[in-house]
Amino acid sequence: MTDPAAPTDPAALLGHLAGHPALADRLGGDPARWSVREIGDGNVNFVYVVRGPNGAVCVKQAPPYVRVAGPSWALTPRRVLFEHRAVVEHRLHAPEFVPKPWYVDAESHLLAVDFLEGHTVMRGELVDGALHPHFAAQAARYLADTLFGTSDLALTATRKRELAAFFETNTAMCRIMEDMVFTEIYLPHPRNRWTSPELDDDVRRLRDDTELKLAVSRLKSRYLSSRDALLHGDLHTGSIMVSADGIAVIDQEFACYGPMGFDIGTLLAHLLIGYFAAGAHGPERAAQRAWLLSAVEEVWEGFRARFAELWRTRAAGDAYPAALFDGVDLEPERQRYLDALFAESLGFCGAEILRRVIGFARPDDFTTLKDPATRAAAERRALALARSLVTEPGRYRTAAEVTEAARQA
Amino acid sequence: MTDPAAPTDPAALLGHLAGHPALADRLGGDPARWSVREIGDGNVNFVYVVRGPNGAVCVKQAPPYVRVAGPSWALTPRRVLFEHRAVVEHRLHAPEFVPKPWYVDAESHLLAVDFLEGHTVMRGELVDGALHPHFAAQAARYLADTLFGTSDLALTATRKRELAAFFETNTAMCRIMEDMVFTEIYLPHPRNRWTSPELDDDVRRLRDDTELKLAVSRLKSRYLSSRDALLHGDLHTGSIMVSADGIAVIDQEFACYGPMGFDIGTLLAHLLIGYFAAGAHGPERAAQRAWLLSAVEEVWEGFRARFAELWRTRAAGDAYPAALFDGVDLEPERQRYLDALFAESLGFCGAEILRRVIGFARPDDFTTLKDPATRAAAERRALALARSLVTEPGRYRTAAEVTEAARQA
Ligand SMILES: Nc1ncnc2c1ncn2[C@@H]1O[C@H](COP(=O)(O)OP(=O)(O)OP(=O)(O)O)[C@@H](O)[C@H]1O
Ligand SMILES: Nc1ncnc2c1ncn2[C@@H]1O[C@H](COP(=O)(O)OP(=O)(O)OP(=O)(O)O)[C@@H](O)[C@H]1O
Ligand SMILES: [Mg+2]
Ligand SMILES: [Mg+2]
Repeated sequence: MTDPAAPTDPAALLGHLAGHPALADRLGGDPARWSVREIGDGNVNFVYVVRGPNGAVCVKQAPPYVRVAGPSWALTPRRVLFEHRAVVEHRLHAPEFVPKPWYVDAESHLLAVDFLEGHTVMRGELVDGALHPHFAAQAARYLADTLFGTSDLALTATRKRELAAFFETNTAMCRIMEDMVFTEIYLPHPRNRWTSPELDDDVRRLRDDTELKLAVSRLKSRYLSSRDALLHGDLHTGSIMVSADGIAVIDQEFACYGPMGFDIGTLLAHLLIGYFAAGAHGPERAAQRAWLLSAVEEVWEGFRARFAELWRTRAAGDAYPAALFDGVDLEPERQRYLDALFAESLGFCGAEILRRVIGFARPDDFTTLKDPATRAAAERRALALARSLVTEPGRYRTAAEVTEAARQA
Repeated sequence: MTDPAAPTDPAALLGHLAGHPALADRLGGDPARWSVREIGDGNVNFVYVVRGPNGAVCVKQAPPYVRVAGPSWALTPRRVLFEHRAVVEHRLHAPEFVPKPWYVDAESHLLAVDFLEGHTVMRGELVDGALHPHFAAQAARYLADTLFGTSDLALTATRKRELAAFFETNTAMCRIMEDMVFTEIYLPHPRNRWTSPELDDDVRRLRDDTELKLAVSRLKSRYLSSRDALLHGDLHTGSIMVSADGIAVIDQEFACYGPMGFDIGTLLAHLLIGYFAAGAHGPERAAQRAWLLSAVEEVWEGFRARFAELWRTRAAGDAYPAALFDGVDLEPERQRYLDALFAESLGFCGAEILRRVIGFARPDDFTTLKDPATRAAAERRALALARSLVTEPGRYRTAAEVTEAARQA
């Protein structure tokens, strides 16, 4: 809190918030007696919980750089404005899964949303060996509701073009994905890290794997050129918080219009990463492993069923104009669409797994495995499945075939 | 010129232009002695030629409505700003085919570009039975240079996102295409016109043709969601002017980021429309017919060769990062990409033919055929080929197979 670009001190932060009537109401009482505490475990921003007698909000402040790196890695603080707008737009379609925003400020780069009492980060739960049986159904619904709701199936072109134009300017954040997911790990790059020397040969093979690099480049082209829906943009298990009975999605700063399969694939990737990491533990994690694979199946099957239902009941967009299909059974077309989306999702899923084993942002699921040989064995299984998902997604017709391949990997 | 939203009088128009030094230089001499003449044969805007001793410019003025309809059909005059920016961006890649802009004004909605001395509109040439042997090679080059040059293969994501964000707001013009190309003609709509009663049954069948409407809806979804390149957006033969040895492309007011196949397919559609219309004439048009089919082949084959060459020599974009493919032969990937683009182009080609036979904007090629039975026969051949292009584009592996099908239609 001593950095000049950070909110400097709790008093200044409280001053901002107290000046905003809705927020003052929400927290209640005398702002002078609100408490502030930093809770940021994130890499990118400063995050605080602010409590008053009536409730609490989570306040995110974006400095003009990446927090863990400091001012030497500059990053636009406007990312918090994209996060805010994504929260607003996603809440139109999935309010139960996205915390309510109370305040955003374009000058101090502050965003305040409801504090999620009693929630913990999903990734930490996985690392601790926990099971969350309600997770998959809710994640499936969140994905279907936000992706369908912001697509051409739900929105008029006029509305969608306005949204797409806005998010198209989240350039700096998208660039991080373009570099980290689709490019850097296939090159010698100073940011790359992996379990070395155990995986050195695997990394070398990957850099020489033309078939893989071509398939990843096709995925990158889709990320760059498709504007299917408003994505969360970074939907790993560290962006989802869970309580005993609910999930909530946070950290939308990478939001952009892009291919739906990017969000779906990212989430599936992190469930599979959790599965492979759990495999490095003993039989005490057998139930978690089984649950994680069933979650992979449930996320996709739940998404698929919910998306088709929304298409049947709430297709008010400019795609497939209803007037053209009066009395026509669109079900085969929906299934065809969803089959293509499944293949696309598996491609992005594989690309995400690969970059999490070899790249800059390695997940705790793996890094908490302290024995390098054990960790490398789990990571190598993840790499094998991932390569297949990227290069031959059409081989998998159902999510059960994917989980079977994960078991065999 | 008596409408209050029009530039009202030549003196006011000249006043605008004279105040702009570069333009005053271009025309030369005393602005009081410049001549102004309306030349607009278009439906949408007012168009003038302004001449001075040194040269001439073409000035387009966009009223806040569609010119032929009058104020009852409102349309944003900002369209002229998109036209200007598209001209600027396309000239970065294909300056020899796009007239140079001299002046644009966001308040009076005026755009001045070089007047194309000695050029006539390509559509008029086709209607008159002319042949332009140089047309296809130049059109192919224009398409490849503008589409490649504005794609992720040539541009960094940062630059492309800025462009895409700007053009994403050309909402009103894109909407006209969304309605007219992909929607209205498949419904009873007051704007639809066709050769009636001759084609009444064909139109009825088309409205009941679920397979066709599904395929057209998939194309509409691509138009709505893909951001492959900066399109001209309305590349029919009325948007291309020709001289004895050159072509120039005008009227970029529908410019947007979209699927490359939309521009390619539109141009192929209008060459085929020219061919079917020529078929309604006697043997005196045999040479024109043969040339038009060879032009279809040459546009596609020329595009394909030039696009692949640009990819080999000028791929500086973020797609397929060069660093990943050092020493790798990307040629098979290029051919795969171009095969997919060919299929997409044929789909859009078919959709464009259909809407030009049945919709609001019927082309002179057909409307100048005065005998309804003759006209209907030509149009019916066009419809038959078009349906096949939309519903089974994969059936055609080469442009020669398309022209053969046109002959058989
Ligand atoms: N609404 C909330 N309620 C409770 N806790 C929250 C909330 N939002 C964030 N947190 C906590 O703060 C942490 C950091 O939040 P967030 O991930 O949004 O920040 P970040 O700096 O962008 O992190 P990252 O490195 O993941 O990008 C979360 O991991 C979570 O523990
Ligand atoms: N640069 C130019 N040089 C010479 N003539 C031109 C030029 N630009 C346009 N014209 C002439 O003016 C006509 C109308 O131009 P343009 O098509 O751009 O206008 P519009 O009102 O948008 O028409 P449309 O109905 O096709 O949309 C053209 O058909 C052509 O005859
Ligand atoms: Mg973050
Ligand atoms: Mg026009």
